[in-house]
Order: sequence, then C-alpha cells, then structure tokens
Amino acid sequence: MGMTMTQKILAAHAGLPSVCAGQLIEADLDLVLGNDITSPVAIHEMDKMKVDGVFDKDKIALVLDHFVPNKDIKSAQHCKCVREFACRHDITNYFDVGEMGIEHALLPEKGLTVAGDVIIGADSHTCTYGALGAFSTGVGSTDMAAGMATGKAWFKVPAAIKFNLTGKPAKWISGKDIILHIIGMIGVDGALYKSMEFVGDGIQYLSMDDRFTIANMAIEAGGKNGIFPVDDLTKQYMEKHSKRPYVIYEADEDAEYEQEFTIDLSTLKPTVAFPHLPENTHTIDEVGEIKIDQVVIGSCTNGRMDDLRVAASILKGHRVAKGLRVIVIPATQQIYLDAMEEGLLKTFIEAGAVVSTPTCGPCLGGYMGILAEHERCVSTTNRNFVGRMGHVESEIYLASPAVAAASAITGKLSGPDEIA
Amino acid sequence: MGMTMTQKILAAHAGLPSVCAGQLIEADLDLVLGNDITSPVAIHEMDKMKVDGVFDKDKIALVLDHFVPNKDIKSAQHCKCVREFACRHDITNYFDVGEMGIEHALLPEKGLTVAGDVIIGADSHTCTYGALGAFSTGVGSTDMAAGMATGKAWFKVPAAIKFNLTGKPAKWISGKDIILHIIGMIGVDGALYKSMEFVGDGIQYLSMDDRFTIANMAIEAGGKNGIFPVDDLTKQYMEKHSKRPYVIYEADEDAEYEQEFTIDLSTLKPTVAFPHLPENTHTIDEVGEIKIDQVVIGSCTNGRMDDLRVAASILKGHRVAKGLRVIVIPATQQIYLDAMEEGLLKTFIEAGAVVSTPTCGPCLGGYMGILAEHERCVSTTNRNFVGRMGHVESEIYLASPAVAAASAITGKLSGPDEIA
Repeated sequence: MGMTMTQKILAAHAGLPSVCAGQLIEADLDLVLGNDITSPVAIHEMDKMKVDGVFDKDKIALVLDHFVPNKDIKSAQHCKCVREFACRHDITNYFDVGEMGIEHALLPEKGLTVAGDVIIGADSHTCTYGALGAFSTGVGSTDMAAGMATGKAWFKVPAAIKFNLTGKPAKWISGKDIILHIIGMIGVDGALYKSMEFVGDGIQYLSMDDRFTIANMAIEAGGKNGIFPVDDLTKQYMEKHSKRPYVIYEADEDAEYEQEFTIDLSTLKPTVAFPHLPENTHTIDEVGEIKIDQVVIGSCTNGRMDDLRVAASILKGHRVAKGLRVIVIPATQQIYLDAMEEGLLKTFIEAGAVVSTPTCGPCLGGYMGILAEHERCVSTTNRNFVGRMGHVESEIYLASPAVAAASAITGKLSGPDEIA
Repeated sequence: MGMTMTQKILAAHAGLPSVCAGQLIEADLDLVLGNDITSPVAIHEMDKMKVDGVFDKDKIALVLDHFVPNKDIKSAQHCKCVREFACRHDITNYFDVGEMGIEHALLPEKGLTVAGDVIIGADSHTCTYGALGAFSTGVGSTDMAAGMATGKAWFKVPAAIKFNLTGKPAKWISGKDIILHIIGMIGVDGALYKSMEFVGDGIQYLSMDDRFTIANMAIEAGGKNGIFPVDDLTKQYMEKHSKRPYVIYEADEDAEYEQEFTIDLSTLKPTVAFPHLPENTHTIDEVGEIKIDQVVIGSCTNGRMDDLRVAASILKGHRVAKGLRVIVIPATQQIYLDAMEEGLLKTFIEAGAVVSTPTCGPCLGGYMGILAEHERCVSTTNRNFVGRMGHVESEIYLASPAVAAASAITGKLSGPDEIA
C-alpha cells in the first residue's frame, strides 16, 4: 500500500521504509515550538524531568505572542520564565517583543519551517506549516517538554482525507472561504485525527497566504494536520525566506484515503461561520441582517500581507461605520513594516480603524478587543466558541478579510460586493 | 489684593468680581471629562440622582482610552456602559476606538480646551490643559456626575506658587526634565492644593508639547492645577485646533503667591525620578549603572509629536539593546498617523521597538507592557509608585523621551549624550 504526503514525511523521520495509518512511531523533530502560554508549563515539566539541557538549541522556537506586550502581571511572569529559559539554554530562535510576531506567521517568515519537516508546537494551530509541505501539528506542553529534551515525539500515523481542489476561485474568494466551506461541509470533527491532504489544479490559484490560512484551520475540522503539495510558488517562498534545505515528499499514486472530496473553487461564495462553531457556515448571500459591534482583522489565520492588502483595498476611501470598533493586527513586525510601507496602515487609520502591534490578543479573549455582553464581532480569526473573545453572551462571526472589511464599512455582516 | 491667572478664571466663572485663596465658590464649567474607568461610576451616580439629562451635550467629553481596545470583559462592560450613555444623551464629544486617543492629548488636539476655560475631568491628569491658560483639574466620579448634570462644580480657590522659569534649556532638556526637577525640588506634596503658576522668559523656549507635559504633572507635586500664560505660540496652537473663542486671563501685578521659585532652565540636566516617587529625582550624570528590562514611550505626559520626534531622532539607525522590550504608544490616532507620515514609526519598528495603538495601557498597570517581579522600566509616564506598572517588586524610572530612547539603545538608564 502506498503512502500519503504526511505518511511519507513521518516514515522518513521515523527511519522506517514505510508506515501505515494507525501505526505508533517515534519521529525525529526538526522544530519544537512553544509560546508564552504553553512554554512555561513545558519548562516546568522539563524541570521535573531533571533534564540537563535541550536536544538542539537551534531547533527550538520560543515565541512570545499571545499576551505580549504583557497584558498583566501573570503574563509578565510567564514571559519572564520563558525569557530566562531561552537565555539559560542559549535558544537561537527566541522571539521577544520587538522581534516577534504571531508564531505561525513568524516561523515561515523567518525560514524556520520548510517542506519535509516534522514540527510540533504547543499550540493547536501549529498545523499551519502544512502549507509548505511539512508535517506539523499541535501538542500539549508535556509533549513539548519531551520534544525539547529529546528531539523526538511519538505519533499515531494518521489516516488521510483527500481534498481535491479544482477550478479558479472568483474574486474575493480566499483561503478562508475555502477552509470555512470545507469545515461547514465535514463538521468540526469531520477530520478527527486525520491528515487533510489538499491536492488538485485549483491550488495553483492559491497564494501562499491562502494556503497558510487553509492549513492553519485544519485543526478546526479536527485534523491532525493539513498539508499541501510543493509547487513553484512554495519553492519561491522557501528560497526567499529560508536557507534550510527542503525535501519534497509526494503522495504515492496508490496512497490510501479514507475519504475523498472534490471542491470546485469556482463555485464558492464568501463564507461565514456563525456562532458558536466553525462548522456553522453560511454563504454571504444568506446571512440576513446581522448588526455588529466590532471587527477584528488579524491572527495566525489572517494577519498576513495578502489579508491586509485585500482589507485595505476595500476600506480605502471609506469610513468604518459609526459605533463600530475596527481593530487591525498585522501578524509580525515585518508585516507591520511592509504594510506601513505599502500605505495599508495609513488606509486603516484614515478609515477609522486602529492598528495594534502584533499579538494573538483578541482571538482567544486575551486582550485588545474583548467583547461585552451581547456584542457581536466579525473576525478573521479561527474560533467562534462560546465566550472565546469575551463575554459568554457575545458572538463571533468568522470570515475572510474581505468580508470583515466590507462589514466594517456597513456596520453589519456584509460581502465585499456590497461596497461600491 | 490682586488675583493670579487661576483666580481670575475662577472668579469669572463664578460670576464674582474677585475671589481669594481659600474661598468656596461654585463655578460654571466649560467641559466635563470622563474616561472608561471613571465615567461608568459617574453614570451610575447620575442614575442614582435620577437626573433626566445632561446640562449640555456639547460640553461633555467621554473618552475611552485607559483599557481600550477592551483588555478584558470587565473593561468591555464599562465601555459598553459609557457608549450607551453617550448614545442615549447624544453626547457630541464621545470618542471610541478608532476616533480616540489618550484624553489629555486628544482634547486639546480636537480643540475642546482653550484659554480661559474651567474644565473638570474624572482623571487626575486633567490639569494638562493649564498649558493653554485654562483652569483644569481632576475630580472624582461623583463630582463628574454632578458636573454632567448641572454644569457647575464647587471649588476652594487655591493659593498659588509662582515658578519663574528663566533662561534657555540646553539640547535634550524638555518639559519632562523641568517638571521632574520641580517635583524633586518641592516634593510630591510641595504644591498641595495650590495652583502652580508658571511664568518667566524661559517659557518662550518651551514648545506646546513641553508645556502640556509640565502642566500634566502638576498633580504629581500635589497641585490643584498648573497654568501657563498665553503667548503667541499658545494662540497659534488654539487657532489651529479650535474654533472656540478663548479668553486670556493675566495675573495681576499684586497677585499673592505663597511661595516663589526661580529656575534657570539653562542649568538643568536630563532628570530621572527613581522608584518609587516622582520626587526621587537624580540628574542623568549621577544615576550609576541601572540595567533595565523595558522602555515605554507614550502616555498623556509624553506621547505627543515632539516626544516621538526626539525619541526617533535618537533611535534612528540604532537597534534597541538585546533583551529589552521597547513599547512606543502615540497618544492619539492623529499623532499615530502624523508619526507614520514623518517616518517615525518606521524608525521605531526598524530599531526593534513595537508601536501600540493609542492607550493609557501600561502607565497604570492596565495592559501593553506590564512588569514582572524585579523588572525595571524606564518610562515617559508620570507615576512610579510601588506596583504602578505591574508587580509590587518592579521598578519604574520616570524620564523624558530622550532619556528613554537613549536607554533603549544601551539597555541601561542613559542620557542622550551617551549615544553617538
């Protein structure tokens, strides 16, 4: 039996000629990631293990991004713990305030993730790097600790679902619409512990940022990982950002997939996930009149240049609706700088939005845009669970940057075609 | 007996030919200010008073600035309360996320405060507007409520201290150094319930931003208010920003001052207030080796264009010290935009600082740069009390933007002359 992309990467990292779904393996890790919420727990676990050092100071990435610049004393103490650990072990890829960004935007930008890698991160959206043809997945802090100590992790090799993306998406249709459509189709447990393998001629129309968004939300369908084949665009991206060698793994022709779906991208409409699950999707033409209080454009899902460009193109020359708060959060310092240079930040400010320094902040109810009772937010983030962004009686509508920007202008959930 | 500037303004607003220190008066208010922390309390008090409406919807300013974009559910609820009140009473000068800025930078910029005004604000640094020749002072939320309902407030007319500023300050000497020098000289209760009346030929060398900084920190010497005479620079500022008529009140020649100080500005050196009181001042040449963890440039004290310009001029071409977090917070959306247009924000980002959306945030331990145990911050804010910016075992060193920027480069408390 042949192997999928994911299975081939895992086999190679386990030193095995082949693996099959359900097999337990131990794989070598190319990168172990933690952030300011999860790393302190992992560091504490390492202390308990009485481990002398880390397996490789160059293969650990510690990114302070969730609650920084420190939102309170507790987060300050957590960051201090990570900072001291990074200093003690001379961690090469330690990113503090000023050098940082949201981890899943930052690591590809810094060239720390490339095709063929096996990456674990103590953050559920670690699956993002599948856009580059890597196997990457979220783990708990204890696994992160073991990974930092040994450079290895055990995995149950996932079975696979094939998503055959065909056709060319219409204007305004982005990676976010595609992944929301898929989650709406298969449900939040539709890919439980499966690898979501994206293939098909439609991929050629997807920018790297689209692919990052899609892979990023694999976990929202329960996926163990999401993964794209490597094409010229991927290679260009990696060669621009990274000096690391990459390895391209292609699925065997006779690879086994538990399910296969074909999605004609040309038929998709802007798609929104209503409260309180990402699977609760509606296309923009059927959302009705949903008045909103806040718009958030950013996060590891949609805080990249493509996202900011499309939002700015819609907001340019408009004012945000009266009574609406619009918060734009470039995902990294580099994106912030590039967006400033391109005039995007000016467009946002002139439209009446505020621009935050990079942070996960509002996405997980941290800070920088928390919702009060009965408030509604259109957000480009990835989860709309009850109370995720604040009060348990608040509501989050997940959408693309285009829909978020259009909604910012009208003050209600709107598609970009509604804007002149 | 003649009257001081402050006494003349108060007499005119009380409808009295003259007032004297210690006299209790009721004065008409030109503006009543509240923010997202204090306004909810005032609104609750108004509810208890069963007042039908506000005295004048054009003479109330409600500014959401302390914990916005909302840092948590509680702050979100408070903002919602203010937002609904502003909507219910059709408050003209209501400033929410996207239109806002730190209140004491925003109101003069929006032209809501001019010479001759009597202004109360439920925020201790309301004394800032004295830079324009207004009487302005901080009050509690109950007084704010009464002010919103009646348009009046009672005052005990303050006795006065005259500060005769002479000579031309040396390069790098700013309003912050002057007011820190004064507080160091007279102590944090040195002007208790007094008006601090700044006069003298040295004022001609002070920009409006310098004067705002000095008036802003009058409260840190215990002052009821701080006030400057109106000169051509003041008039230019007001005519640029405001359409409101202003009234210039000059002190009588025989006005009574309880104390008089003469300060030769040409002799001042960059001045820093050590923990844990603004009076604990040292000049930069005697600070020794103070290693720091964080720098904050911003706040109602030092988040204006002059402040950002001087900080950028020092940071340009440099990198912030390794291990240091540097947070720059333009005080208003307009300042943010102007600083972006001038290339200052680019300089900050390229140096490795982060730029926050306008907020009071870290100054009062709100968010956006809270300190962990044993951490030290050089900050352009106004208070360095125990635990003000985070952990009770953290330390704040109050300084000018020039000292803050120089310290950002060296990683220790440093003067701008130490930077090549």
